[in-house]
Amino acid sequence: ALQNLLKEFHYADIAEILDELNLEQAIYVIKLLDSETTSDILMELDEDNREKVLKNLTAKEIAEEVEELDTDDAADIIAELPEERQQEVINRIEDEDHKAEIKELLAYDEDTAGGLMAKELVKVYETWTVAGCLRRIRGQAKEVTRVHSIYVVNKEEKLIGRLSLKDLIVAKSEQKIADIYITSVDYVDVNEDVEEVARVMAKYDLEAIPVVDENKTLLGRITIDDIVDVLKEEADKDYQMAAGITGDVDSDDSILQLTRARLPWLFLGLLGGIGAFIIMEGFQEAFSKYAVLFFFTPLIAAMAGNVGVQSSAIIVQGLANDDVKGSVNSRLLKEMLLAALNGLILAIFLFLFVWLYNGEMDKALAISTSLVAVIIIAGLIGTFVPLFLDKRGIDPAIATGPFITTSNDILGILLYFWIAKMILGI
Amino acid sequence: ALQNLLKEFHYADIAEILDELNLEQAIYVIKLLDSETTSDILMELDEDNREKVLKNLTAKEIAEEVEELDTDDAADIIAELPEERQQEVINRIEDEDHKAEIKELLAYDEDTAGGLMAKELVKVYETWTVAGCLRRIRGQAKEVTRVHSIYVVNKEEKLIGRLSLKDLIVAKSEQKIADIYITSVDYVDVNEDVEEVARVMAKYDLEAIPVVDENKTLLGRITIDDIVDVLKEEADKDYQMAAGITGDVDSDDSILQLTRARLPWLFLGLLGGIGAFIIMEGFQEAFSKYAVLFFFTPLIAAMAGNVGVQSSAIIVQGLANDDVKGSVNSRLLKEMLLAALNGLILAIFLFLFVWLYNGEMDKALAISTSLVAVIIIAGLIGTFVPLFLDKRGIDPAIATGPFITTSNDILGILLYFWIAKMILGI
Ligand SMILES: [Mg+2]
Ligand SMILES: [Mg+2]
Ligand SMILES: [Mg+2]
Ligand SMILES: [Mg+2]
Ligand SMILES: [Mg+2]
Ligand SMILES: [Mg+2]
Ligand SMILES: [Mg+2]
Ligand SMILES: [Mg+2]
Ligand SMILES: [Mg+2]
Ligand SMILES: [Mg+2]
Ligand SMILES: [Mg+2]
Ligand SMILES: [Mg+2]
Ligand SMILES: [Mg+2]
Repeated sequence: ALQNLLKEFHYADIAEILDELNLEQAIYVIKLLDSETTSDILMELDEDNREKVLKNLTAKEIAEEVEELDTDDAADIIAELPEERQQEVINRIEDEDHKAEIKELLAYDEDTAGGLMAKELVKVYETWTVAGCLRRIRGQAKEVTRVHSIYVVNKEEKLIGRLSLKDLIVAKSEQKIADIYITSVDYVDVNEDVEEVARVMAKYDLEAIPVVDENKTLLGRITIDDIVDVLKEEADKDYQMAAGITGDVDSDDSILQLTRARLPWLFLGLLGGIGAFIIMEGFQEAFSKYAVLFFFTPLIAAMAGNVGVQSSAIIVQGLANDDVKGSVNSRLLKEMLLAALNGLILAIFLFLFVWLYNGEMDKALAISTSLVAVIIIAGLIGTFVPLFLDKRGIDPAIATGPFITTSNDILGILLYFWIAKMILGI
Repeated sequence: ALQNLLKEFHYADIAEILDELNLEQAIYVIKLLDSETTSDILMELDEDNREKVLKNLTAKEIAEEVEELDTDDAADIIAELPEERQQEVINRIEDEDHKAEIKELLAYDEDTAGGLMAKELVKVYETWTVAGCLRRIRGQAKEVTRVHSIYVVNKEEKLIGRLSLKDLIVAKSEQKIADIYITSVDYVDVNEDVEEVARVMAKYDLEAIPVVDENKTLLGRITIDDIVDVLKEEADKDYQMAAGITGDVDSDDSILQLTRARLPWLFLGLLGGIGAFIIMEGFQEAFSKYAVLFFFTPLIAAMAGNVGVQSSAIIVQGLANDDVKGSVNSRLLKEMLLAALNGLILAIFLFLFVWLYNGEMDKALAISTSLVAVIIIAGLIGTFVPLFLDKRGIDPAIATGPFITTSNDILGILLYFWIAKMILGI
């Protein structure tokens, strides 16, 4: 009864339901369904839940699931297994071609085009005729869920062009592929970074892109549904990183997992706070007559943090979208002008407030002057750090959030007291 | 010569080059190329640059570009024009069908399925045969860049199923569509929010989805390339919002545009800082013997801010991915436990530091106890505010970043002095 009920549902919906059940129930449902459906369900489960389910299946059962999956998903599932189980499962795959293709895919880094591509694609040789082609496609296409483009190769298996199914239908059956194929074809290298693949596919509005090696030999194909997942994951990761959360957790994860993701960054903040304390204590005597200045440290720290986060976010995003043009110096100059303008407006407001509230112009001047300086420096740090990390090949996204706010808190407070000291002539 | 050179390039690449030129040069290049290419280029230009270019074209010239575009892009371009020019351009479109379709699309809100869909699609009636169908498709498909699914409608134009080109090729030519079409077809309502459309398409791995009205009449179709753009834009917007930047700017925008996007949030931070100043001044006398406590306010503010950003980011992301399950109370309880655990670990460290550094246990106890309280409250605010906004139909993404840090800064400092006062018995 449950079996028939579940048949009505899409596998992605069943996966959503299973994610809410406990492990025992989930396994019960999975064993109830045939492996064609369960393999798709497995792919859609939360990674943590999939891991638990796979632990409860035998190598033979996993191999059966893997047989049903496209090579890209099959390789991903196997890659998630513990080292020693991987070989066991691979050995039990019966289809030798499928096995060989999965093994090939397992060799690529998951952040590269090779790690994302599938071996399933429709390929024709330039020497074929349209009629012959249609016949072959009827065969090949059974294994390929969506055809998208048909890739044209020469006899050395090198990618030389593409055809759409539509072109093929419109063409006369006796025509040669060589006479009708389109030579302009976008492709990516098998070692290309997935984020770059996503950028190319988005830019040229592609639904699939062939993957080649350095000799332009056709190796596989990446489809847009997997790119959509990459975009979502990357966006989530960058968003979390900017918020001081690492390790790809979600709101349903356990308190321990969330602690592991959040505590390190909070600890960094704590160290920054202790740094600020030490700085303030160091200025205690010098400013003993100016206690009011200490009351502005949260303001200074907040402004330094906010400006740093703003400028770093713009740069990180620009780098991700590949539209940060011009030299580092011109970037820094622009941010300096921008920060100076914003800082000046804010400082005038602060000056008026402190002056009218407190009545002492020299203090008002000291506080607001240092605010401008702090904002400029914070903007420059926020601009420079991600550019620097990027040049070094480190993901600049790490530079936003707690990293920037903490360093700007300390530096901002230090700068503030230095400048105030100078202006007040202490 | 330049003309021939540019013919070799993809329109998306030409657009990238034009974005770097000045207006005069860009217009020169656009007038040089035929309107089939320039219409695609126009769509790929930066919005600000497109606006400038369009200002320099006559209504007739714009209408010529619009004739070449798919209806979704055509409607988008026209919607960007000033009110009075829109009608002028529409009147000059020669193709009456195209004109009527564009006018229909202009009526939909840009954040809905209707605002994103195109009228171009391949539609067949259930009563047709495969052979007749292929003949008609050869006609219809010329106007449709990519076929994806073929939508099957009954004689009332209601969507009843779909077919793939592949199904059609594999079928026998005398078969009736009614006998071979697939009745399970995903679709979205024309008023559905675009983010929800994106979620559905990502979940079911769709490359196109038909759009229907409340009677299931087929109105149009949304393709994945436009969804990829939506995902990118939404991710960029949320990222910027969390960093305290509004208005969809990028790193190449002018200093004035960037100021408009950044200054309001900085001003909010400034007001928060002034609030913190007033609180600290209020506690000045009470704590005159405990000056050291004032030196920990940046630490307290930073921790309150960081915890608030972390918890709000997790909730905002969960809401966007539609996986925040369970009641608000259970969410708050979980965050409280999480914050209490993190807070306790951090407080123990802080207690030891202050005690060893300062030698006074009562102060160390006061500071670290209030740290725990501040972290718990900050976590609860970070969890509650986005949930509350979401319930009210307001985009919860606004709750992260400066909004949360500023309110948590003030509240954190207030709470800190209250608790310290109690513990020290002042
Ligand atoms: Mg893979
Ligand atoms: Mg695109
Ligand atoms: Mg496009
Ligand atoms: Mg795939
Ligand atoms: Mg990234
Ligand atoms: Mg998880
Ligand atoms: Mg639109
Ligand atoms: Mg998907
Ligand atoms: Mg998938
Ligand atoms: Mg479109
Ligand atoms: Mg959003
Ligand atoms: Mg712009
Ligand atoms: Mg802060």
